[in-house]
Amino acid sequence: MENDAIELEPIGIIRSPLKDPSQAPKQGSEGAVEGWLEVDDHYRDALLGLEPGRKVLILYWLDRADRSRLQVHPRGDTSRPLRGVFATRSPHRPNPIAVETVEILEIQGTRLRVRGLDALDGTPLLDIKIAA
Amino acid sequence: MENDAIELEPIGIIRSPLKDPSQAPKQGSEGAVEGWLEVDDHYRDALLGLEPGRKVLILYWLDRADRSRLQVHPRGDTSRPLRGVFATRSPHRPNPIAVETVEILEIQGTRLRVRGLDALDGTPLLDIKIAA
Repeated sequence: MENDAIELEPIGIIRSPLKDPSQAPKQGSEGAVEGWLEVDDHYRDALLGLEPGRKVLILYWLDRADRSRLQVHPRGDTSRPLRGVFATRSPHRPNPIAVETVEILEIQGTRLRVRGLDALDGTPLLDIKIAA
Repeated sequence: MENDAIELEPIGIIRSPLKDPSQAPKQGSEGAVEGWLEVDDHYRDALLGLEPGRKVLILYWLDRADRSRLQVHPRGDTSRPLRGVFATRSPHRPNPIAVETVEILEIQGTRLRVRGLDALDGTPLLDIKIAA
């Protein structure tokens, strides 16, 4: 087993009207928020074939998450018993990577306007994949 | 924007009957393969609440991917025009993280037997989330 460090390179940044964690919908919910995926120019060629109307899976880095937390109260409700983070959609987890399906509304160069975002403004974008 | 290095810590390893990339189904297909998620003992508490019969989303690191490729021929068919990797499910991409839904069949301590795997044997496991 190779357990060497794995380093990610953000491919861009997410621009969202959500500025504060308290505004963010719970992960896994159906967000209706619109925002922009600003892909770095270095990855321009990797966008070939994407079109408005396509649904894509995006992966992004929850940079405000607590990576040391192994258990949480579901939905932050302390009256509920603790659960392992792997049995939740909590942002707090050892590798805080969010997975979300969004719809492409518009493409301007390397900027994609999308609908269905739950991400906070300034979140590092990691990947875009065609939805299965 | 924080573009500092982001380092992942594998939470375990995937044990699969698929030993070779040529055997691996295409990402995004419905695999019927059974295997084991071997979670490191350090993350034992994070499994609390997972049960057989639950569907979970797993994230894993495609450690044999080419991270420098920005375009590919879809399905490896060189007669088809090149596409940007973000418009495909190719394993080759800047941050080669696979996302897959599997069903938990059995739990033995920190080992989870699952159905629906596409991962090769020895793949680093990054995350487990309850399926939305």
